[in-house]
Amino acid sequence: MNWPRGVTSAGAHCGIKAGEVPDVGLIVCEGAARWSGSFTRNGAAAAPVTWSRSLRGKPVSALLVNSGNANACTGPAGDATVIESVTAVARYVGCSKEEVLCASTGPIGVHLDAELLAAALPGLIDDLDGAVDPFASSILTTDTRTKLARAEVGDTAIVGVAKGAAMCAPNMATMLAFIATDADVGQTSLDGPLVAAVEESFNRISVDGCESTNDSVFLLATGAVKDVDQNAFALGLNEVCASLAEQIVRDAEGGNRLVRVQVDGAADSVSAAALARAVADSALWRAAIHGADPNWGRVLAAFGTVDRELDLDQVSLSIGSELLFDHGSPAGSLQAAAKVMDADEFVLQCTVGTGPGGAEVLTTDLSPEYVTLNAQGTS
Amino acid sequence: MNWPRGVTSAGAHCGIKAGEVPDVGLIVCEGAARWSGSFTRNGAAAAPVTWSRSLRGKPVSALLVNSGNANACTGPAGDATVIESVTAVARYVGCSKEEVLCASTGPIGVHLDAELLAAALPGLIDDLDGAVDPFASSILTTDTRTKLARAEVGDTAIVGVAKGAAMCAPNMATMLAFIATDADVGQTSLDGPLVAAVEESFNRISVDGCESTNDSVFLLATGAVKDVDQNAFALGLNEVCASLAEQIVRDAEGGNRLVRVQVDGAADSVSAAALARAVADSALWRAAIHGADPNWGRVLAAFGTVDRELDLDQVSLSIGSELLFDHGSPAGSLQAAAKVMDADEFVLQCTVGTGPGGAEVLTTDLSPEYVTLNAQGTS
Repeated sequence: MNWPRGVTSAGAHCGIKAGEVPDVGLIVCEGAARWSGSFTRNGAAAAPVTWSRSLRGKPVSALLVNSGNANACTGPAGDATVIESVTAVARYVGCSKEEVLCASTGPIGVHLDAELLAAALPGLIDDLDGAVDPFASSILTTDTRTKLARAEVGDTAIVGVAKGAAMCAPNMATMLAFIATDADVGQTSLDGPLVAAVEESFNRISVDGCESTNDSVFLLATGAVKDVDQNAFALGLNEVCASLAEQIVRDAEGGNRLVRVQVDGAADSVSAAALARAVADSALWRAAIHGADPNWGRVLAAFGTVDRELDLDQVSLSIGSELLFDHGSPAGSLQAAAKVMDADEFVLQCTVGTGPGGAEVLTTDLSPEYVTLNAQGTS
Repeated sequence: MNWPRGVTSAGAHCGIKAGEVPDVGLIVCEGAARWSGSFTRNGAAAAPVTWSRSLRGKPVSALLVNSGNANACTGPAGDATVIESVTAVARYVGCSKEEVLCASTGPIGVHLDAELLAAALPGLIDDLDGAVDPFASSILTTDTRTKLARAEVGDTAIVGVAKGAAMCAPNMATMLAFIATDADVGQTSLDGPLVAAVEESFNRISVDGCESTNDSVFLLATGAVKDVDQNAFALGLNEVCASLAEQIVRDAEGGNRLVRVQVDGAADSVSAAALARAVADSALWRAAIHGADPNWGRVLAAFGTVDRELDLDQVSLSIGSELLFDHGSPAGSLQAAAKVMDADEFVLQCTVGTGPGGAEVLTTDLSPEYVTLNAQGTS
């Protein structure tokens, strides 16, 4: 896969991770690009998040990312690393440091050496080309594969790359996504559609309910293609974000099944999403998914934590086509539902009333491997 | 251990569970007792919870409890089972059915046969005596031991029994507690202290962040002992609740370590408890506890989900006596902290500012065994 015209990237190994694994990536835009970003709301946001946020509204020329170190909770030294790194990038690219975004993913609380990043820059600059893959590989942590998506809208392309929500080698669930387009769209036509697309994609997945200090989604627009249809662009952006989000859940640490938690009949889509998310986050329900055990009571119990006035007589629940709870009473065959669950993917469909609100949240199983993967590594 | 004077109980096997395991318990008070209760806020509250709640403010004479079936999400049939059961108890005890509380714990969504409970009543009535143990055994699910606590306040006693937060055989994390006293205390002197005691005990533990459809705490007061000091009574009640809550965490499913998450320096105790609870609920931090891995970044990331304006420069964090994060910067030895964590119990101490608010929440590790225990059993 290639980036849209006007965007190049490269990936390399700079020494943050052991072995020859790629751990630093660079995106360079031809000319300054408009951009929009969606960042973690975590109060312990990482130094690169704070930096990138501060550049909002100004055009950018480059983006530096590293994996293997989150540069989070690293104090003033962490901020200094960011400044040194973006300054070095600016020098090579020929722009100001305020035109260089950055992102990090990996263990929290470990000092990130700016010199490692700077030393990799000449090689990265030499390697810059339109191919997405070397960059996509450089951002991975415990991901088992790269995550790419592309949509075409008329003459313009929207190309995205993501990592997560696997843990870093041993740390936070972190997701990063980098999306670029050659469309010439104004700032508000970047910001609004990105907020909407993130809400319906990256905010509708749950691996463990844990929120990262580093989550960032970047959208870069070089502007080479004029007169792009705004609605078509927004739809293409949704498509790219939804694809990347689903790829993240499918590659979740220790995960073996993708479950589509669908809620309808709620008062509005926000309520529906809150109900679906409570189910997607439930450790008990996710353990049941692991064992293909149709423990639907855990789904209703999760609903009850969100809706204190839940009217069970209005609630029905199916796993695949097997109706297990019908307007307040148990129904159907647990054995049949267990067979549905014993697959790579299944749908949990819940109706909670007669309202117009619906939402889908993607989740995966909680496995012993998840625990084992996350029980060690810091010391 | 014995109940306070005026309270008797018994436990028996009625056939809900396989084998000869006790699965039904009865408490009978000599004369009508004042009572107070604290119940799950879950919108999918079980039929026995709805029934017991409806008796608030009226004196009671008996309490029926079963394990092995939650009688939750069971529709009109579940309500009928409650009515039939409390009516049968009333007939044997010689009171009205509105003087009979009830509680259930076990799998959700399975029909509970009232006849099984009714058939056990003659034997239970015959066996009634002051000993706590047979009753305490009858309420257990995957608990590995009974949970008892006693406090004496002058001439009066406060005796409590609890079960949970292990899963039922295979269902919800459920905790039940039954506390009795012979103190003559007025309704408001039962209600207020119970709310306060529950807040500082059962609401300050977390096993998996999942909330049950059946959680109930009952406090019965026979009134035999007059002129009890109200403050001393409240303190005694706190002591009993705190002891039972700690016993629940120590017996958590798959749990191997007790962790005291202590937060101070918050604006108030409510904020401190919210921060501590976010840490106690974090699947990532609890996986790290399992591996004795001092992954303190996960603690700060959990804080950041609660306090969006967290000022890391005001935050310090220690595991045992090892200071790992000092006013915004990493510190200390991870190896030393790992040694502290490799124990049955340790303290995670966090200062988040200079405010007067502090709180402690107890949690345990997330283990592969927890997942395995909860991944099967329904079908």
